[in-house]
Amino acid sequence: MSHAPPGAYAASGVNIDAGNQAVALMAEAVRSTYGPEVLGGLGSFGGLYDASALRQMANPVLVASTDGVGTKVRLGAEAGRYRSIGHDIVNHCVNDILVQGARPLFFLDYIATSHLNPSQAAEVVTGMAEACRAAGCALLGGETAEMPDVYVPGALDVAGTVVGVVEAARRLPRGDAAPGDVLVGLASTGPHTNGYSLIRRIFAGVALDTVYPELGMPLAEALLAPHRSYLQELWPVLQDDAQPIKALAHLTGGGVMENLPRVLPDGVGAVVRIGSWPVPPVFGLIQTRGGIALEEMYRVFNQGIGMALVVDAREAAALQARLSEPSWVIGELAAGARTVRLA
Amino acid sequence: MSHAPPGAYAASGVNIDAGNQAVALMAEAVRSTYGPEVLGGLGSFGGLYDASALRQMANPVLVASTDGVGTKVRLGAEAGRYRSIGHDIVNHCVNDILVQGARPLFFLDYIATSHLNPSQAAEVVTGMAEACRAAGCALLGGETAEMPDVYVPGALDVAGTVVGVVEAARRLPRGDAAPGDVLVGLASTGPHTNGYSLIRRIFAGVALDTVYPELGMPLAEALLAPHRSYLQELWPVLQDDAQPIKALAHLTGGGVMENLPRVLPDGVGAVVRIGSWPVPPVFGLIQTRGGIALEEMYRVFNQGIGMALVVDAREAAALQARLSEPSWVIGELAAGARTVRLA
Repeated sequence: MSHAPPGAYAASGVNIDAGNQAVALMAEAVRSTYGPEVLGGLGSFGGLYDASALRQMANPVLVASTDGVGTKVRLGAEAGRYRSIGHDIVNHCVNDILVQGARPLFFLDYIATSHLNPSQAAEVVTGMAEACRAAGCALLGGETAEMPDVYVPGALDVAGTVVGVVEAARRLPRGDAAPGDVLVGLASTGPHTNGYSLIRRIFAGVALDTVYPELGMPLAEALLAPHRSYLQELWPVLQDDAQPIKALAHLTGGGVMENLPRVLPDGVGAVVRIGSWPVPPVFGLIQTRGGIALEEMYRVFNQGIGMALVVDAREAAALQARLSEPSWVIGELAAGARTVRLA
Repeated sequence: MSHAPPGAYAASGVNIDAGNQAVALMAEAVRSTYGPEVLGGLGSFGGLYDASALRQMANPVLVASTDGVGTKVRLGAEAGRYRSIGHDIVNHCVNDILVQGARPLFFLDYIATSHLNPSQAAEVVTGMAEACRAAGCALLGGETAEMPDVYVPGALDVAGTVVGVVEAARRLPRGDAAPGDVLVGLASTGPHTNGYSLIRRIFAGVALDTVYPELGMPLAEALLAPHRSYLQELWPVLQDDAQPIKALAHLTGGGVMENLPRVLPDGVGAVVRIGSWPVPPVFGLIQTRGGIALEEMYRVFNQGIGMALVVDAREAAALQARLSEPSWVIGELAAGARTVRLA
């Protein structure tokens, strides 16, 4: 874990006192994510996670994913919202392994920048720790790098890796998705972490505190809402022996058009019905200001649905009733190529 | 695994044909790291690793570490040596968990740049795959990000995460390191991945094909030799029931001065004897050109020793005889503060 030693910050020429204080707060936040499985402490070369519990599983499969926040960090930095970036990266990664049926065990982060600002880095890590705690996941390690020749001054990049576990027999997609199955969509909190290069171009020169009437809130609020996690909502469902979810698709870069086919079997496509759920106004604003074709919107953005569930049509209503949040039947599967058709 | 879909490169405006070819080569290299434990293939949201073998262990502990190559990437890019950067990051990570007694199971990478050059990215990933294969480790996933507003044009950053496993009873450091134990050093191949901001300043304006007489090879060769792995040399030793290694220190950023104390118990310090091993000429050249104080050299660079082993003085000779490469007794432990004294 390379976050902790305050010495690492000494060389960067920053305010060491403020830095040390930030690092102390960060270390406390990181420790708050440790369950009894985390062995040793800060300062060792690698993080240690007791995996003895995996011995109780019939066939444990580790599921790992690395991702970055992308250019949303640039917008987050402009708005001074560093903690929210921490939520973004952890939740993005957690969702990526959830769609394979896995719950997270631990997360490691990578923060790189031109000149390290310890308070900012501590805010990012504190946000990560909050999201990890909510996911029951240890923030096991990380690296903070300062590279003036690689990063644009003031810019930072945030990436992370999550490692989780699933019982082999419980892996998703199950492979039995079939024509006639329906797609149930869960709401996103905004564009999550995708399409931000385009968003930044479209809103270039617009102050982040601008309140567009259709948004009813400052632009920063609408654009920087943290990528949400679907673990808390879906994990209780997935634990049932007779759980009805055949597949889950995390609608990230590429939107429903490119992500849904990833979990469909050969010979099965999908129809997604525009108008079957309320698309949040931020996407309409992006489309109008950017002059973007409707289908392109569904290919870049999640359009208000961050997670799509594939379920047997007869089980959809019961599943929806069980969920603690609104959901919508957004389409269905149909025989054909592994593609999505908008209708 | 986000490396594979050629579609990801289509948006970047690069030569798609060259890109596709590079990506195909890369995918082949990645697949060559897959053992039977790797389930599924490219294209899923997370990589899957069958961990059933952990059920045979009494008390499996997962060990994970994230690291970056640092500014060595800048130099590597200038010299067009992308494959070597792949070796750097994997071997750095593998060594970081080896010092806790762990062997690697899988690795995930993160490559970010201002404008993606698929051939360059494929070279980096191919290098990673080579190093993973040598370490018996699967290249399970990764992310390639293109962020023009975050990265300096032409610059790229390479980071990675390794996950390994160790039987709890075999964890290092063992905790029994004591005054009188000796330090056995294994050779580095050069500065490995540390001190490159300083190196780049010192050799600013010097052509990378310059042949300094004391080096007898082009500067690029001496500065960009890949960070080596100590797994192949040390793993056979560590598997013995009566293995003599009490602790291992990977001499990365901070050199022997800062890394050795990390594995020492309270009340135990170390004396490192200058002159007890041959310091490679590249370090002398750096010191002379940079006007760097001797102790500072040992605080920034590995000075020719990339891994330090702590062993009982009576077992050192037998251990050294068993190794397939040269090694040196570079000092010993002594009662005192957890610091290193140069003598």
